Amino acid sequence: MRLGTIGALLGWLLIFLSVALLLPIAFSIYYDDGNWRFFVISSAIGFLLGGTLAWSCVSEPEMGHREGFAIVAFGWLAAAALGALPYYLSGAIPSYLNACFESMSGFTTTGATILGEVEALGPSLLFWRALTHWLGGMGIIVLSLAIMPILGIGGMQLFQAEMAGPTKDRLVPRIQDTARILWSVYFILTAVETGLLMMAGMGFFDAICHAFSTLSTGGFSTRTESIAAFHNPWIDSIITVFIIIAGINFSLHYRLLSGNLRAFARSEELRFYLGIGIFATILVMFANILFGTYESWSDSLRYGAFQVWSILTGTGFSTADFDSWAPVCKITLVTLMFMGGMAGSTTGGIKQVRILMFWKFTRMQIKKLIHPKAVEAIKLDNRKVPAEVIQSILGYLSLYMLVFVVATMIVTGQGTDIITGSTAVIATLNNIGPGLGGVGPCQNFAGLPDLSKAVLIICMVAGRLELYTIAVLFLPKYWKDVHYPKWRWSRS
Amino acid sequence: MRLGTIGALLGWLLIFLSVALLLPIAFSIYYDDGNWRFFVISSAIGFLLGGTLAWSCVSEPEMGHREGFAIVAFGWLAAAALGALPYYLSGAIPSYLNACFESMSGFTTTGATILGEVEALGPSLLFWRALTHWLGGMGIIVLSLAIMPILGIGGMQLFQAEMAGPTKDRLVPRIQDTARILWSVYFILTAVETGLLMMAGMGFFDAICHAFSTLSTGGFSTRTESIAAFHNPWIDSIITVFIIIAGINFSLHYRLLSGNLRAFARSEELRFYLGIGIFATILVMFANILFGTYESWSDSLRYGAFQVWSILTGTGFSTADFDSWAPVCKITLVTLMFMGGMAGSTTGGIKQVRILMFWKFTRMQIKKLIHPKAVEAIKLDNRKVPAEVIQSILGYLSLYMLVFVVATMIVTGQGTDIITGSTAVIATLNNIGPGLGGVGPCQNFAGLPDLSKAVLIICMVAGRLELYTIAVLFLPKYWKDVHYPKWRWSRS
Repeated sequence: MRLGTIGALLGWLLIFLSVALLLPIAFSIYYDDGNWRFFVISSAIGFLLGGTLAWSCVSEPEMGHREGFAIVAFGWLAAAALGALPYYLSGAIPSYLNACFESMSGFTTTGATILGEVEALGPSLLFWRALTHWLGGMGIIVLSLAIMPILGIGGMQLFQAEMAGPTKDRLVPRIQDTARILWSVYFILTAVETGLLMMAGMGFFDAICHAFSTLSTGGFSTRTESIAAFHNPWIDSIITVFIIIAGINFSLHYRLLSGNLRAFARSEELRFYLGIGIFATILVMFANILFGTYESWSDSLRYGAFQVWSILTGTGFSTADFDSWAPVCKITLVTLMFMGGMAGSTTGGIKQVRILMFWKFTRMQIKKLIHPKAVEAIKLDNRKVPAEVIQSILGYLSLYMLVFVVATMIVTGQGTDIITGSTAVIATLNNIGPGLGGVGPCQNFAGLPDLSKAVLIICMVAGRLELYTIAVLFLPKYWKDVHYPKWRWSRS
Repeated sequence: MRLGTIGALLGWLLIFLSVALLLPIAFSIYYDDGNWRFFVISSAIGFLLGGTLAWSCVSEPEMGHREGFAIVAFGWLAAAALGALPYYLSGAIPSYLNACFESMSGFTTTGATILGEVEALGPSLLFWRALTHWLGGMGIIVLSLAIMPILGIGGMQLFQAEMAGPTKDRLVPRIQDTARILWSVYFILTAVETGLLMMAGMGFFDAICHAFSTLSTGGFSTRTESIAAFHNPWIDSIITVFIIIAGINFSLHYRLLSGNLRAFARSEELRFYLGIGIFATILVMFANILFGTYESWSDSLRYGAFQVWSILTGTGFSTADFDSWAPVCKITLVTLMFMGGMAGSTTGGIKQVRILMFWKFTRMQIKKLIHPKAVEAIKLDNRKVPAEVIQSILGYLSLYMLVFVVATMIVTGQGTDIITGSTAVIATLNNIGPGLGGVGPCQNFAGLPDLSKAVLIICMVAGRLELYTIAVLFLPKYWKDVHYPKWRWSRS
């Protein structure tokens, strides 16, 4: 493990974020909310810390798996710690732990909040909240399509051939190429959604904040009531469509934009994702009519579809208080929470491709009972999936259950009731946002004890980084052979 | 698929049960509860149906996997349908569906009840309830140690070498040998527990009924308040010990009885099982003190240990209303519900050996991230576990989750709240007995809608038969090449 490389890259990340921290200043000045100074201070702190790290740590030329894990894990933690400063310094969130919760919820595109009334933050802080989503989303797209496949995490090797075929020595340039392509798609989609939302009646500020939150499947809104505050079916529809788009693998979007329709049409994962969402929408729509939640079919469809896709992709926007829906709707939503969108999107959760492989694997095991000697390969998009990829996916799911159970035990261990405690873990581990009960769509996470909040912060980052990235840090083996950095000032 | 073989064996099963139906008559006459006639009628119906089947269907000499699945699955269904007759005919349970629920709960050793006040049944019906547990337990021991390993279900191949090494042509005699050995252990343990319970102050009737329910990890009691009704710490302790014993693989008990201490000491699964139980006991004990459920440490240990082991093994006896315990205790108990005891015992749930393999597999996957090329075999008791066994176990767990989610959706789909609905499914799928909320230890399953009860009956039998046995029946492939029976009367 080469700590020098890790330090240098983390330093550059902090420098990048300190630049991003300057953007909300424009809104602060325009709306005259007086918070610009806190962004200046935060940015300066980030720049100083990052600059010191980047300058003093000498990056070594070779970079292996182990450095990758550390950079990803500590990168998200450092971003959250720095991103919490504006909330904390401005006094908008007086507890630094709460500020870190909000900041981590932003960078991991979770969207869970500890704020009772978000409007009180003022425009510049609201913009920063949305921006952390958008930047986090950027990170995740590159992470899931360029970095994780190389690190071999949880079946993501499936995508190794998708965008780029990096060889070890060309790792960094390849990742940069991939990132440029994907971010251009991300940028275009954000611009289009902002424009459409403005046409539907939103102001520029609300429109760009919500576009940031939608494309990153984050879920922070500029209103306490979330999208319900706008009472506008056009806005509901536009956001629903963009939520669905945001849940699709960004490399597929890129191919579509470059005219490759076939890849889009051929993707089994896409069909599975759309199928699950449509099935759940119909189910929730019927249940909402049957149990009398809504009187008209159109309302039931409007609110049902919005909530199903918002939850499935882990966006977490709400247009209704789904905690008051019928139990079957709530169970459906909780099940969707675990699923997430497609791999290579900004969504959280297990991801559709893993669930699809899991299902294929199970079906094969049942078939084997009749013909024990029949060996059938598992295929995806008509290509054979290597056995080690399937094993990686199966291991991923078991790790998921383990983390879920342990985290739920800690949270309920502090006296939180079962529904609130377990859905708080589900909502953070899968980067959804709201849960049920005490953390339902009309509630927030402020009431939970501090230790629970800390556990949920870890859940957010662990879920975001596909668990393995964090789990590997707990192996004693991982910490062997640490190369301490060559400090620049001590170089001969 | 040879329907003749299936029909003949099911016929013999019904004949066997019709004999068992005569046993409660002794208690009916002794206590003069007037129910003896209903047992005579039920027995006669069973004998006629069974006799007709056994006589008319010609068993074919060869028997394969597919016949095995059908016999096991339909065997349990037929037993439940026949076993429901005494409840129904006597009018004690006026709805036949409810009677089937109670009967299936008995034969699957679940212990979930639809009765508000069990004492109202009278001694002979209470004895029949306990006897269905005991007979079901007998069936399960043989199933899990002699039949399922041959059918290759869910990793049970691990035990193929344990007791017997059956070759195809010697299948039936081998199973009979194995069964004889295991049942002798079962019988001895039942006799010892009955004796000890009588020494602790129970009457013979209560003692034998509770011994039946303990050794089969069933959970039906002769009292509505379950074991709490006796207010006797000795009885609590004896039952706790026998619950722990009942959760151990019966082939280990046999080896211990035949002087082979080493097998007992060497079993990794046994250590894991005891470790989980002890850890959970300590956790619940501390939580009960911390949250003020009990004032003294001794009470907290007494009720905590009893409930932890009762739930872990799926017995489902209660000495306390654990639905009113702190949330963390309830989450712990729900987690234990999924686990179950050791494979080869009468417990329900996933089984300790599968959880242990699952954990080893996950740990290996995380290690692989650091050394992607290191190939490490998974071992159990110092023997390598074949890859296909691990795959079978992983497939099992995914099927488990799928059945759990679908069943919970159907149950909550009828308006039952989330906690009641999900724990009703957990409690039946894992053959526990009571759940939480509306199906908590001081409640019963009578209030659920009929469709929910039917789904839960399927959960009980599916969980009991390790899911695969039932799942395989849903494959179209399974129903190919059906050999219709050669009827005896149409033979040339």
